[in-house]
Amino acid sequence: MPMADGADKEKRTVKGKIMTYLVTGAAGFIGAAVAKRLTGDNEVVTIDNLSTGREDNIPPGVEFLKGSVADADLIRRLSDRKFDAVIHIAGQSSGEISFEDPVYDLQTNYQSTVLLLDLARKTGCKKFIYASTMSVYGDHNPPICSEDATLVPKSFYAVGKAASENYMRIYSEQFGIACTALRLFNIYGIGQNMDNLKQGMASIYLAMALSDHKINVKGSKDRFRDFVYIDEAADAFIKALGREEGYDVFNVCTGKATTVEQIINIIKENLPYDVEVQYSEGTPGDQFGIYGNYDKISKALGWKPQIGFETGMKRMIEWAVKDHR
Amino acid sequence: MPMADGADKEKRTVKGKIMTYLVTGAAGFIGAAVAKRLTGDNEVVTIDNLSTGREDNIPPGVEFLKGSVADADLIRRLSDRKFDAVIHIAGQSSGEISFEDPVYDLQTNYQSTVLLLDLARKTGCKKFIYASTMSVYGDHNPPICSEDATLVPKSFYAVGKAASENYMRIYSEQFGIACTALRLFNIYGIGQNMDNLKQGMASIYLAMALSDHKINVKGSKDRFRDFVYIDEAADAFIKALGREEGYDVFNVCTGKATTVEQIINIIKENLPYDVEVQYSEGTPGDQFGIYGNYDKISKALGWKPQIGFETGMKRMIEWAVKDHR
Repeated sequence: MPMADGADKEKRTVKGKIMTYLVTGAAGFIGAAVAKRLTGDNEVVTIDNLSTGREDNIPPGVEFLKGSVADADLIRRLSDRKFDAVIHIAGQSSGEISFEDPVYDLQTNYQSTVLLLDLARKTGCKKFIYASTMSVYGDHNPPICSEDATLVPKSFYAVGKAASENYMRIYSEQFGIACTALRLFNIYGIGQNMDNLKQGMASIYLAMALSDHKINVKGSKDRFRDFVYIDEAADAFIKALGREEGYDVFNVCTGKATTVEQIINIIKENLPYDVEVQYSEGTPGDQFGIYGNYDKISKALGWKPQIGFETGMKRMIEWAVKDHR
Repeated sequence: MPMADGADKEKRTVKGKIMTYLVTGAAGFIGAAVAKRLTGDNEVVTIDNLSTGREDNIPPGVEFLKGSVADADLIRRLSDRKFDAVIHIAGQSSGEISFEDPVYDLQTNYQSTVLLLDLARKTGCKKFIYASTMSVYGDHNPPICSEDATLVPKSFYAVGKAASENYMRIYSEQFGIACTALRLFNIYGIGQNMDNLKQGMASIYLAMALSDHKINVKGSKDRFRDFVYIDEAADAFIKALGREEGYDVFNVCTGKATTVEQIINIIKENLPYDVEVQYSEGTPGDQFGIYGNYDKISKALGWKPQIGFETGMKRMIEWAVKDHR
């Protein structure tokens, strides 16, 4: 979708609502869902290195630049574009992999943020929305976290995300960019990558159950997370586009804890065959249990989760059974 | 100083106290002072890219590898070496420059730490000491900071340093490396780079006074800092080598605040000619005023500052007048 200068300008004038967005990582689970919500009347550009995403995930009508968000030369090539907002979702997203390759992790999760914030500054883009993570909290006691909790990140992945939040705060203060960090809790649902066994607790267990009729749980069955259905997570990004100034950070969560055991039971109950469950040692930097308080995003942006985990998980299982067996 | 295998082993056995240290940044002000304290019976290797340091700063007997600490290939070349400790001091050290080139800043200050921690892990090195900074605190109210204060870094430089501290904490917890972060307040004294007008408050003013008989102050004269004489800062690194396990962080400070105006008065009083003072706009991310509490390092490592700012500054002025006019 290259810009035809005259035509594009006219369209912009006539309709008055055409926006141009850079959404990184639109070949991935969350990026694709957000990009899909923005296409239509808007122009959407994405960068994705297809390391875990797939090109056919990218919604129709999205301009695709294949490459890494940590590649300074690639980002520089965008410096003659004018974006109404940058929505930065791309990045290595596995705590486990951040231990295997910490440098790759920091480049995709931290250097990329710096490059994109700098692009925003230099091109006059005034909105920046970032996919942060509940991992920044680390192990928290009590396990329910509000945004003002102390951050004690346990994985390198989480350190990079917390550093990115700090970068956004400074870019906002110094250069007047409205920056929003969304601390995503566990996002799951239709469209999740069922081939990636290092990212996404519910999708990992489901993928194992489907392919081997056996789930290997790394760590305790009593661990728990706060699961947010993908459509509602995408909605949080859309609502964050309404923020016009300053830096702020919001939990994207449901306020409900679901244990590993509960996830496995839902999977077992919804598959027509027996599923064996094995337990092995946990992965480094894994949090034991965490869930979030969503009061802040509810008040500021009117975002509220409505899809319960069992409902969402049944949808996902149905989809996965049909498409991925 | 290449290792002659047999000879070296023998020396090690006979004397029993020969250690091998990697000290990054030994061409710079602080790195050179620390490396100097370690040479003698020990083997000291340094990496420095000479971006702000000078080769003739490197103490005699130190093995010098020219290159960047953020260069993965260079660090990999050290993977057959066995270090008793890594002391990581190299890095872009100007908050101001971190705004001009945030990517260079993050690579030297953050990627380098990850690469070196990973080298330590892979080579079985069990001690890692890091030059962090008081900048991690940001503006703090009240302005005296203990180590448990909340971190609100104002410059990208400080964000990278805070992230590095988190990396060290995780490497310590996960891989049993004794990691020590020293939050250096303003280090000054003989040997400081008098040509670098973007780093080192006292040295910048002194250098301007010497070269132009005019000091251009970027920001308020009421700003204040906590100044630590270089020899005492180097001593904190040596004392930190005594730590055998876990992660910890220590202020390296004097507990005394000195204002910009006081610094300038000391410089004026100790120069034989008039010095004009001009004020202009501050630099982004500059903290207003901060000083530190050194109780923790005093109790844990027996480190205590003894050289007052006026005493140290007179020494520095005398040295600078003689060598750098």
